[in-house]
Amino acid sequence: MNFGSDNWAGATPEVMASLARHNAGFAPGYGGDPLTASVGRRFAEVFDHEVGVYFTATGTGSNALSMAACARPGGLIFCSAQAHLRTDELGASEFFTQGMKLIPVPCRQGKIDAAGLAETLAAYPEGNRTGRPTVLSLTNATESGTLYSAEEIAGLARLAHDHGLFVHLDGARFGNAVAALGVSPAALSWRAGVDIMSFGGTKNGCWAAEAILVFNPEGLGDLNVLKSRAGHTFSKARFVAAQFEAYLADGNWLKTADHANGRARRLAEGIAAKARLAWPAEANEVFPILPKAAIARLKAAGAMFYSWPAENLEVSPDEEVLRLVTSWATTDAAVDEFLALL
Amino acid sequence: MNFGSDNWAGATPEVMASLARHNAGFAPGYGGDPLTASVGRRFAEVFDHEVGVYFTATGTGSNALSMAACARPGGLIFCSAQAHLRTDELGASEFFTQGMKLIPVPCRQGKIDAAGLAETLAAYPEGNRTGRPTVLSLTNATESGTLYSAEEIAGLARLAHDHGLFVHLDGARFGNAVAALGVSPAALSWRAGVDIMSFGGTKNGCWAAEAILVFNPEGLGDLNVLKSRAGHTFSKARFVAAQFEAYLADGNWLKTADHANGRARRLAEGIAAKARLAWPAEANEVFPILPKAAIARLKAAGAMFYSWPAENLEVSPDEEVLRLVTSWATTDAAVDEFLALL
Amino acid sequence: MNFGSDNWAGATPEVMASLARHNAGFAPGYGGDPLTASVGRRFAEVFDHEVGVYFTATGTGSNALSMAACARPGGLIFCSAQAHLRTDELGASEFFTQGMKLIPVPCRQGKIDAAGLAETLAAYPEGNRTGRPTVLSLTNATESGTLYSAEEIAGLARLAHDHGLFVHLDGARFGNAVAALGVSPAALSWRAGVDIMSFGGTKNGCWAAEAILVFNPEGLGDLNVLKSRAGHTFSKARFVAAQFEAYLADGNWLKTADHANGRARRLAEGIAAKARLAWPAEANEVFPILPKAAIARLKAAGAMFYSWPAENLEVSPDEEVLRLVTSWATTDAAVDEFLALL
Amino acid sequence: MNFGSDNWAGATPEVMASLARHNAGFAPGYGGDPLTASVGRRFAEVFDHEVGVYFTATGTGSNALSMAACARPGGLIFCSAQAHLRTDELGASEFFTQGMKLIPVPCRQGKIDAAGLAETLAAYPEGNRTGRPTVLSLTNATESGTLYSAEEIAGLARLAHDHGLFVHLDGARFGNAVAALGVSPAALSWRAGVDIMSFGGTKNGCWAAEAILVFNPEGLGDLNVLKSRAGHTFSKARFVAAQFEAYLADGNWLKTADHANGRARRLAEGIAAKARLAWPAEANEVFPILPKAAIARLKAAGAMFYSWPAENLEVSPDEEVLRLVTSWATTDAAVDEFLALL
Repeated sequence: MNFGSDNWAGATPEVMASLARHNAGFAPGYGGDPLTASVGRRFAEVFDHEVGVYFTATGTGSNALSMAACARPGGLIFCSAQAHLRTDELGASEFFTQGMKLIPVPCRQGKIDAAGLAETLAAYPEGNRTGRPTVLSLTNATESGTLYSAEEIAGLARLAHDHGLFVHLDGARFGNAVAALGVSPAALSWRAGVDIMSFGGTKNGCWAAEAILVFNPEGLGDLNVLKSRAGHTFSKARFVAAQFEAYLADGNWLKTADHANGRARRLAEGIAAKARLAWPAEANEVFPILPKAAIARLKAAGAMFYSWPAENLEVSPDEEVLRLVTSWATTDAAVDEFLALL
Repeated sequence: MNFGSDNWAGATPEVMASLARHNAGFAPGYGGDPLTASVGRRFAEVFDHEVGVYFTATGTGSNALSMAACARPGGLIFCSAQAHLRTDELGASEFFTQGMKLIPVPCRQGKIDAAGLAETLAAYPEGNRTGRPTVLSLTNATESGTLYSAEEIAGLARLAHDHGLFVHLDGARFGNAVAALGVSPAALSWRAGVDIMSFGGTKNGCWAAEAILVFNPEGLGDLNVLKSRAGHTFSKARFVAAQFEAYLADGNWLKTADHANGRARRLAEGIAAKARLAWPAEANEVFPILPKAAIARLKAAGAMFYSWPAENLEVSPDEEVLRLVTSWATTDAAVDEFLALL
Repeated sequence: MNFGSDNWAGATPEVMASLARHNAGFAPGYGGDPLTASVGRRFAEVFDHEVGVYFTATGTGSNALSMAACARPGGLIFCSAQAHLRTDELGASEFFTQGMKLIPVPCRQGKIDAAGLAETLAAYPEGNRTGRPTVLSLTNATESGTLYSAEEIAGLARLAHDHGLFVHLDGARFGNAVAALGVSPAALSWRAGVDIMSFGGTKNGCWAAEAILVFNPEGLGDLNVLKSRAGHTFSKARFVAAQFEAYLADGNWLKTADHANGRARRLAEGIAAKARLAWPAEANEVFPILPKAAIARLKAAGAMFYSWPAENLEVSPDEEVLRLVTSWATTDAAVDEFLALL
Repeated sequence: MNFGSDNWAGATPEVMASLARHNAGFAPGYGGDPLTASVGRRFAEVFDHEVGVYFTATGTGSNALSMAACARPGGLIFCSAQAHLRTDELGASEFFTQGMKLIPVPCRQGKIDAAGLAETLAAYPEGNRTGRPTVLSLTNATESGTLYSAEEIAGLARLAHDHGLFVHLDGARFGNAVAALGVSPAALSWRAGVDIMSFGGTKNGCWAAEAILVFNPEGLGDLNVLKSRAGHTFSKARFVAAQFEAYLADGNWLKTADHANGRARRLAEGIAAKARLAWPAEANEVFPILPKAAIARLKAAGAMFYSWPAENLEVSPDEEVLRLVTSWATTDAAVDEFLALL
């Protein structure tokens, strides 16, 4: 019954097989190998668009190096107050950008809306002395397990572009968003106005497969240089390429995401029959409000999960908000055991 | 006949098996897993000393984050003019340290000696306005495939400590040095005065297994924070730990290094019978001076290698200096084929 | 009728005379001159405490270099949402600290209170992944022209110290605060728990006389190095020292501050008889809420001032909030002319 | 007998008078005042070219912010080994540029020549992994008191531009160079290919008057933003403008420079009659090689000066190299007293 995080799982059999398959023989280092090149072409097919592909070591690396590619002195990054790059990366984006400032945009259930964004942008016009508006960073699926539709992304991106901003997407759980919304990767990215994104494979079945995808390179810094200078250029890059090859083959990434989403739905439905959810579970995360007694019982039985801040929710002193995350490796049995204990 | 670099090889069967073995089940993320903890203890055994172990994504990451841990404003880093962190990392160490300056120390065949170091340190006394002497960084085996003995390291480290410097070792090929010199890992590191080192497994049989080892934490910055802020904290850290487990088990790392060193020796001896070596091949790199005609013939036959700057060597216009690198995957057959073509 | 800012005035006759007096002859550069040393001792007398004195070029320089002296990787700086270092310095503090993050603490009329600070600190415990709590920065007089009493500073500083933070004071208008509160400089600084402060003379009668004062150097970085690396070490430092000599002599700085405060009070009282003030004018800034018609009339007559965000104030569409700043050079005549026009 | 440095002198009577003249009344802050605008136009006249003028606090500020304006990630700055920005600024240029690396070009008597520059540029081609060639920085008059002719500057700049570099001139003693060479400011700057320069007034008769001049803004970062973020934007900018107004009026800056150069020539001629000069004194610095006994005698009589590294000069154990600097305030009497003592 492990719902700690989707990064508690290992790698899928397909990823392991691909690593084994591509282990033989010699290949040029630092991404000069043919497998890396072929994975680059594969990304272009998947996204139906020319795309620059830059492997990094971690999602934090992708986010912070994306910001560095967009950076200008004294720049501002607009993001939700819950954005991973604001709350969980120890200032990586500020560090890589010589100190750009993150401006939190009001959000609800992890999502910002056009009105909130417009109001925030109006408070920081070009020429103000707090900083220079430079990037809008969105996360989809969000840190709250909710989803932006393609139209919502497009609306926010339009507003951002009108103000001269780059649009970045943190896609640590992009597979979960695509699978849940049933739209194309293109629809949720460049067609909606995304210029650059962090594309994560690690949470959804790889060991360490993260990439920055650039759809619109205009005005961006040189990511090959930024990566190397940050120690994010793997010498044996084919080990990342091999993971992505398996990940993107045969729609594997959407199958694993769909599996995770399904287990979250099953969990959410089961919980909703007995208790409250803080908000709907749209991807692979469920946020129930549970009595502390039930939580203690679940823990005692070995269930693994984390608490979540209650913030604006109506939560009694006897209750707590939890975050339950499912992954490609979550079984129905684990879900049902959890529900039974509840 | 691939002598391009030791990072052109894949991972050893032992490393692949360990990844498979540790793939099952769930484990806490970000290095909180038991395997990572056990690998930490294993490092302490191997080095016969308490040691802080910090995984990073790449050797550049290890070097630059090591410098960041030692950093102070306006600091100076002393290293050989050929040091990888100076010549091959696009300013990573300067970037991570808010612009510390690298001061090249005169070197011969990749090695600096006590007299040259003493003279350079004398030129930058505490209080000078170029910068504040802060770190000595040595590489062993060196970028020229030569070796510092334990005594040589100790002599340089003593000098550095007398001037209040931290001593860092770039051990991208540390296994090759230990295997070639036949001494203990301890003798070449903390016993010789090394405070912090970049320990590389990637070139010697792993996919991506790099770590910073801290023997003497006094005065160093918090590497967990520095790593996270740089995007070098893997969420599924066990995939690095699994590689190191196999790497360090049963002396595997010294066996692969010894294999590589032996292939280099065989290559060097064979070449020496027919042509000149720029200097002795002490680890897993060979630097012959070959006629351009022979080089063309080798290339035509599919041999892979890189040129090397001639600098102070006596090289005729018809000749060139090459760098040939062997690895755990280099076969005698490849060596012999190369020699036959020569 | 110039109420644009206190930095629109020139230098006092005393400051000009001191510059002339100290212009003769040769003096060592970079602060090694006897006048700079004597000004250092004078600061110690004025503050009744040993104090490190570091001249900088601007208030922004003082604030950002103070943050740099306190910095640690991934650090957090707590300040009011209106703090000058957050809203008016284009990210200087983030730039100098390799990207520390500013966390706004809720404030009212420019002041934060103990409850708001406690709540904010609780949201960022040591070990959280947003960042590491490092500094509390307060401004006195505040950006809203209000004042912290010595007791209020002490209460906030105690809370900060309990959480292991450094306490910084932005004293761009420190003279106005000391003069208005009628307490000693010591009472409003180190006795209240301030570790390091930006001491500004420019707004209150100098050309460019700013200094960082360190009351408690423990744990701080080397400000001489930080300053030099930032280009804030004047070669002819005696021109700053000469300004401070005149500024601190005979209580001149409190006389000019008292003059400015008095003109603000006269202005506030006059306005209050005819219109509303957004909040009381406690130092040398007045924030009236005026009908737009009156504002237009004042502008037409040549009055100079800026608008101020209405935020939570009750302001009708026909009204606007203004900021009126007085200085050592503001005359009663100018105040009375303004009031007459109103 | 003060020959310590040209920054040991105060400000000229003309500069003091201008400060007094412009002290009256109110003026917009942060460089928005009419005097600053008029000084900007005056610079354009003096240089016979459109020019962006950005005041800074110090020469180090000008150099480091110039480098920041030119910066790109992983960039290289080529300069002489003696360049002030390399040897005397505690890493300011590296700090402001996120760690660009300074590559010393071989120099003789403070000057680099075309052959040495060509060779160095060839060693760092675009695409090398040490860094990306980005700026050539020259100093005129040099740190050794020697001069580049307009043709020499032009030759080096052409080479630099051919390699895609920006050309920066450190003009801390630009007045001395112009006065000594008897050519126009234009000839020694933009006509010779200089894109951006540090223009110093402080050493030559001002208190603190330094500016970055931009002749060719193409590809450069926004200096207004870079300056503000660095705390180099004076609120009462008119005090810098007032100094420059007097400095540039009536050729004052060339008169003071000519005076300093003349005193250096008198000193050099007098010394040459009795002892050796390390090299000719072309501007306002003299480098004699003197017997230690004579040096002791001079010091005992109150003469002030500094030693200089002997490096490649033939200097006996009984001798030392000195640096003697003259300024606008140096008198013939002081020179003659020095010579008499010698």
